[in-house]
Amino acid sequence: MPELRKDPIIGRWVIISTERGKRPSEFDSPRPVLRQGFCPFCPGNESKTPPEILAYRDGGGGADSPDWRVRVVPNKYPALKIEGELNREGDGVFDKMNGIGAHEVIIETPDHLASLSSLSSKNFEEVLWAYRDRIVDLKRDSRLRYVLIFKNHGEAAGATLEHSHSQLIAMPIIPKRVSEELDGALEYYNFKERCIFCDIIRQETMQGVRVVAENQDFLAVTPYAPKSPFETWILPKNHGASFENCQKTHYENLALIFPDVLKRMDKVLNSPPYNFILHTSPVQNGAEKYYHWHFEIMPKLAKVAGFEWGSGFYINPTPPEEAARFLKEANP
Amino acid sequence: MPELRKDPIIGRWVIISTERGKRPSEFDSPRPVLRQGFCPFCPGNESKTPPEILAYRDGGGGADSPDWRVRVVPNKYPALKIEGELNREGDGVFDKMNGIGAHEVIIETPDHLASLSSLSSKNFEEVLWAYRDRIVDLKRDSRLRYVLIFKNHGEAAGATLEHSHSQLIAMPIIPKRVSEELDGALEYYNFKERCIFCDIIRQETMQGVRVVAENQDFLAVTPYAPKSPFETWILPKNHGASFENCQKTHYENLALIFPDVLKRMDKVLNSPPYNFILHTSPVQNGAEKYYHWHFEIMPKLAKVAGFEWGSGFYINPTPPEEAARFLKEANP
Repeated sequence: MPELRKDPIIGRWVIISTERGKRPSEFDSPRPVLRQGFCPFCPGNESKTPPEILAYRDGGGGADSPDWRVRVVPNKYPALKIEGELNREGDGVFDKMNGIGAHEVIIETPDHLASLSSLSSKNFEEVLWAYRDRIVDLKRDSRLRYVLIFKNHGEAAGATLEHSHSQLIAMPIIPKRVSEELDGALEYYNFKERCIFCDIIRQETMQGVRVVAENQDFLAVTPYAPKSPFETWILPKNHGASFENCQKTHYENLALIFPDVLKRMDKVLNSPPYNFILHTSPVQNGAEKYYHWHFEIMPKLAKVAGFEWGSGFYINPTPPEEAARFLKEANP
Repeated sequence: MPELRKDPIIGRWVIISTERGKRPSEFDSPRPVLRQGFCPFCPGNESKTPPEILAYRDGGGGADSPDWRVRVVPNKYPALKIEGELNREGDGVFDKMNGIGAHEVIIETPDHLASLSSLSSKNFEEVLWAYRDRIVDLKRDSRLRYVLIFKNHGEAAGATLEHSHSQLIAMPIIPKRVSEELDGALEYYNFKERCIFCDIIRQETMQGVRVVAENQDFLAVTPYAPKSPFETWILPKNHGASFENCQKTHYENLALIFPDVLKRMDKVLNSPPYNFILHTSPVQNGAEKYYHWHFEIMPKLAKVAGFEWGSGFYINPTPPEEAARFLKEANP
């Protein structure tokens, strides 16, 4: 019998096909390929990107010199622009404002052939520091309400350049999925005076069936009601609403568990395309007590039919318990 | 300057790239192809589907005989099953129930080579009657709260069989996107004592810039804040919450405007894959006063990057005013 499961945070129901659970080998997703050729993200081509915003580099090289380890540049084709006023405006029943914001690219490594999962934990940690430093900088702009950090890996997951990178969009609104989580978490907090994510972490740790990996500070689990197969979340074990306010040791430990989870996916799902998104508190009015930052990683395995996208109703062919077992048993 | 626009019903903001609006020819989506070969939906192969639930046929042929015009059968691989109890159950913070429901296929035409947009309006009208008759029948089952009717056209839009068909999933929950619309529409109604969709129809008719087509009973528009390019809605001009409670003449007029809109998309976008979804009131407690049924049609043009899907934050490269102009000027 298929099961209907409810996401405890946002209240979305999904169908989990418990009977004919799809095994990893049944998914047919195009493994991202590296073509090489000219790449604006490679060292030496710094002049082909807009001037850098941030870089970590060895030695005394100046801005836009080639000796960087992690480099952040504006997106050449930004979805939002930083100059101007919001000019909120109504038009009858409709509302609009200017597309003010920032759109940046985090180039994760100078090595064109490296993938995020293959980075050293030291390199990975610096990618996390770059996320953190950019959030800290952008939150000073009072026009902005959210900094969305995400990665599209592989063409099927929306990547247009293959050199390993993540993206940042800082915007004057809160993305709908995040505001749903904030609303749901606040409602739970008002009712229970506890963080719902903390409660989930306690239950997942106790039950163990959806745990993929863990270390001192982090837990990686497949969520109870995932909208897509092998979706995996990485959550800090201790409560915290804002990614940028972590302790230094947290970034160290996140830089251990995150590539570990990606390697497990590579092993089990044949290096799939994937997306991940950082879910963290809005930058202006924090949700310190009731929100709990985390990463959501979604391998791009099934073609999402438009009806799922348009109805918000998802059919997931792989129970998260099975996905967790495969990922946990993988030996990356 | 890109624009941020807010969907007036569910409050989701989208980025509309007003500057570098993508023209129809810039989209590169695979045109659905017909391969022929054995087809379980073709006349003569009725025994290859589960026994029919409903059919409109000429002459005196019995159930599962080949002389049908429109035929409804259970999905051979149903996402939900009709037998059993819901057995709602908690597990700590989690909630689940049995996957009770119906999953049916509406075979729209006996002609394997026909597409929905090429059907005669008489044939199209009978497809609408089949939707209506199935909703009327299924709403008597008090376990069910929603009947979701949708179509995946073309492999890229999730279709697995090419013979033109739509699907129906009757379920004990309300899909998230619909419940968001219900919540938003109720809030507006409580505030204004008017239906928000009726207000939108009034404004769209007056402004005209997003109107694609209209007739006596229906208006086809590109919505103000669409999540994807060339998304088009067909709404009844007169208020009504439930598709199944339409007047007979409404189905006649819908059967005129609906294929007209699809033909315009075929012309402008080179017969794209597409999805459509019927948004109608839940079947148990109606939302008569404040909800307004409609169809949402989404051509599958851009690859949806996972970050959009996972964040609920959409970037639309084509302003709806431009899309409407192309569709309106097309001469199908």
